Amino acid sequence: MYFPIFALLILSAQETSLADRMCAEGLTHLHAYHMLDELTNKIGGRLSGSPQAARAVTWADTMMRSTGLENVKQIPCMVPHWVRGKQEVAILESRGKRSKLSICALGGSVGTPKGGIDAEIVEVKTLAEASALGERGRGKIVFFNRGFDPTLTSTFRAYGGAVDQRFGGASAAAKSGAVAVLVRSMTLDPDDEPHTGVMEYGAGDHIPAAALGIKSANRLSDAVGADPHAKAHLELSCETLPDEPSANVVGEIVGSEKPDEVIVLGGHLDSWDLGRGAHDDGAGVVQAIEALRLLKSLGLKPKRTIRAIAFMNEENGSRGAKAYAEFVKNGKQKAYAAVESDSGGFMPRAFGVPKEKLDALRKWEDRLQVFGIEHFRAGGGGADIEPLAPLGAALFGLEPENQRYFDYHHSRKDTLDKVNPRELEFGAMAMGMLAWLISEEGLPN
Amino acid sequence: MYFPIFALLILSAQETSLADRMCAEGLTHLHAYHMLDELTNKIGGRLSGSPQAARAVTWADTMMRSTGLENVKQIPCMVPHWVRGKQEVAILESRGKRSKLSICALGGSVGTPKGGIDAEIVEVKTLAEASALGERGRGKIVFFNRGFDPTLTSTFRAYGGAVDQRFGGASAAAKSGAVAVLVRSMTLDPDDEPHTGVMEYGAGDHIPAAALGIKSANRLSDAVGADPHAKAHLELSCETLPDEPSANVVGEIVGSEKPDEVIVLGGHLDSWDLGRGAHDDGAGVVQAIEALRLLKSLGLKPKRTIRAIAFMNEENGSRGAKAYAEFVKNGKQKAYAAVESDSGGFMPRAFGVPKEKLDALRKWEDRLQVFGIEHFRAGGGGADIEPLAPLGAALFGLEPENQRYFDYHHSRKDTLDKVNPRELEFGAMAMGMLAWLISEEGLPN
Repeated sequence: MYFPIFALLILSAQETSLADRMCAEGLTHLHAYHMLDELTNKIGGRLSGSPQAARAVTWADTMMRSTGLENVKQIPCMVPHWVRGKQEVAILESRGKRSKLSICALGGSVGTPKGGIDAEIVEVKTLAEASALGERGRGKIVFFNRGFDPTLTSTFRAYGGAVDQRFGGASAAAKSGAVAVLVRSMTLDPDDEPHTGVMEYGAGDHIPAAALGIKSANRLSDAVGADPHAKAHLELSCETLPDEPSANVVGEIVGSEKPDEVIVLGGHLDSWDLGRGAHDDGAGVVQAIEALRLLKSLGLKPKRTIRAIAFMNEENGSRGAKAYAEFVKNGKQKAYAAVESDSGGFMPRAFGVPKEKLDALRKWEDRLQVFGIEHFRAGGGGADIEPLAPLGAALFGLEPENQRYFDYHHSRKDTLDKVNPRELEFGAMAMGMLAWLISEEGLPN
Repeated sequence: MYFPIFALLILSAQETSLADRMCAEGLTHLHAYHMLDELTNKIGGRLSGSPQAARAVTWADTMMRSTGLENVKQIPCMVPHWVRGKQEVAILESRGKRSKLSICALGGSVGTPKGGIDAEIVEVKTLAEASALGERGRGKIVFFNRGFDPTLTSTFRAYGGAVDQRFGGASAAAKSGAVAVLVRSMTLDPDDEPHTGVMEYGAGDHIPAAALGIKSANRLSDAVGADPHAKAHLELSCETLPDEPSANVVGEIVGSEKPDEVIVLGGHLDSWDLGRGAHDDGAGVVQAIEALRLLKSLGLKPKRTIRAIAFMNEENGSRGAKAYAEFVKNGKQKAYAAVESDSGGFMPRAFGVPKEKLDALRKWEDRLQVFGIEHFRAGGGGADIEPLAPLGAALFGLEPENQRYFDYHHSRKDTLDKVNPRELEFGAMAMGMLAWLISEEGLPN
């Protein structure tokens, strides 16, 4: 491309003056990205209960104050404290050859006994298959190898079709007497980086669980196919320590007419430990703060209260989300609406909105198009704001472009360099504009 | 994000069976990406007239044949042969200090005399300012430092507002007797990689022209602001050699009912020399071939002829585009429609379509939504297909997400790792589906 033939064709004709002013402020300064740089590079990965998560709480508190938000405070909660530990190794042994597999423990997993586990491997594709192994599973390492369905256009849908293996694989395999599980990483990226994420145990035995990088999963599958006695040595030193105190951080612009009707903008401050939690979900936190900063810097005084929340512990417990819902329940304010950003800091494409309000809300689509929001879709929400639905809040979710999200998600690759400063800012602006529209015009019944 | 709450909400309800089959084929095999890997990594940058460009012609010919396209052939054209040469250096000298500036020659620039040019620097923001310098410009290096307007939401529009400096800066500065020009790179990425691109001389003196990385441009501006006698030493060994023979490569699926009505899908095979021409525009070439491969692999037999074209020399002359238009003019077939992809291999968002047909074409939007095409916009086209408009072709342009495009454009950074295999494939599928719709249903009058 050498000449700007499309140049005049692309900009939406729907821009309003407020949108222009927001772009002028947001795209000139790119504050969301500068905040995310601090959060990801000065603090790093921020797993609940870690010293980094504690530093992130202080950081968010300071950042909200320096942004000039009102009523900045911490809403305390106790959080799980799982630690990865130093030892994390898997070695494939087949036909006299030994080779390392690229793994990481899944969040919440128990460690192996000291010295590790050595066992033959059984490959399965489903939880049902693992539960039904019976004696064939006893004393084995069960290997869950059902990948994302690549033919689905939405990577979130592909994730939804595979993540039960990570979440419940250990529990299912334990029913057949397995001693550990290895799970193909939740990604379409064919490299060898393992992707962690939360798992949970059921009533049965707690057996160690680790994710395999895709190349390692493929290699392991080949080995098991060629050699029914292929074994693995697995050693994990992860463990769950006692719960730690932590907190959500909130700050707001108090509404001028209906201060008790609160519109929440939120993302989660905690992240997995492997990467830096840039897309998941530093992006959502800095977008929420930036959305309020933009409104303030444009001199806008909303009728309703608009509140930014950096939620704690979305990744492995949602204790922050529960604590915030309790806080609302015990207070006098009304949870009017909530907008979550927890799908990455990519270019916005849509907002999920309450299904029953979809038609009535379409009048706002034109106001958001300049920020990349092509339309509203039925079904807003997010893990951190779901508990607000029973309290009456209308739930919205920012839906950015999603093709790259699971390439980085929960892995060492979730770092700032994967985030484009402008794309991140567009998300913040879209959230700010949506909050403003909700605040000023109110929601349709 | 730990659980797929959006999973069921995202997939469009508009999928048709053909779209599903296309996704199953395209997203499983990701052939566009594998082709692009070969083109960018086995061949590399492919500037017109270079040995790499010649190899790319052979590669495209072979690839189209092995894909099973019909009537594969080369349509010859002579192309400019500009070479960068080995010497490319700029040193800032101010207040007794010397420091290197990050530069690259602009395409088409003359070199400096051997030993280089040493001259004081005058900073300007516009061509008019440069032309009006008069005596203040004589013997100077004119430094064009008007950046992209970051507040524009479309990066193509920002490019359109700045690229005159690169294209015509040397010509404007020569009017005031300048001896060389340095031009702030055409990008919003604040790193220090220089971005090349075509420039042209007018009737006046031919003076050397180079692009500056953004950090270097900022540093130079600071130096010139602080020291009116700041100088630079500039040495470029680039030169223009005699024209070389080259060619467009075409291949097609012959239409079953109206074989003489031709629908072109195209991108350009040449690229700048610094990077690997991944987004610009290897992406467009492999998408065009892949679109036809998809139709074939699904067993579809179009009524009209659908032709993939790898155009030559889009970057600095459009000789291939002109040669193809001549070929059409001298033949008996009708240029029915043309779809260009030359805006990067990012996730599709829209098609530009002929303005007068926009309303009538909207009936197809639903068929394309599954590939990321949210809607049609008035104004399709692209440099390689523009010459087909006077011949009666309806012009369409693929418009992918554009925020990252100019971060890589014409620089060393335009490499395969910046391309997501799925996003690239979505573009190919969208082009294939659009071609199919045009072929089967015909264009509205």
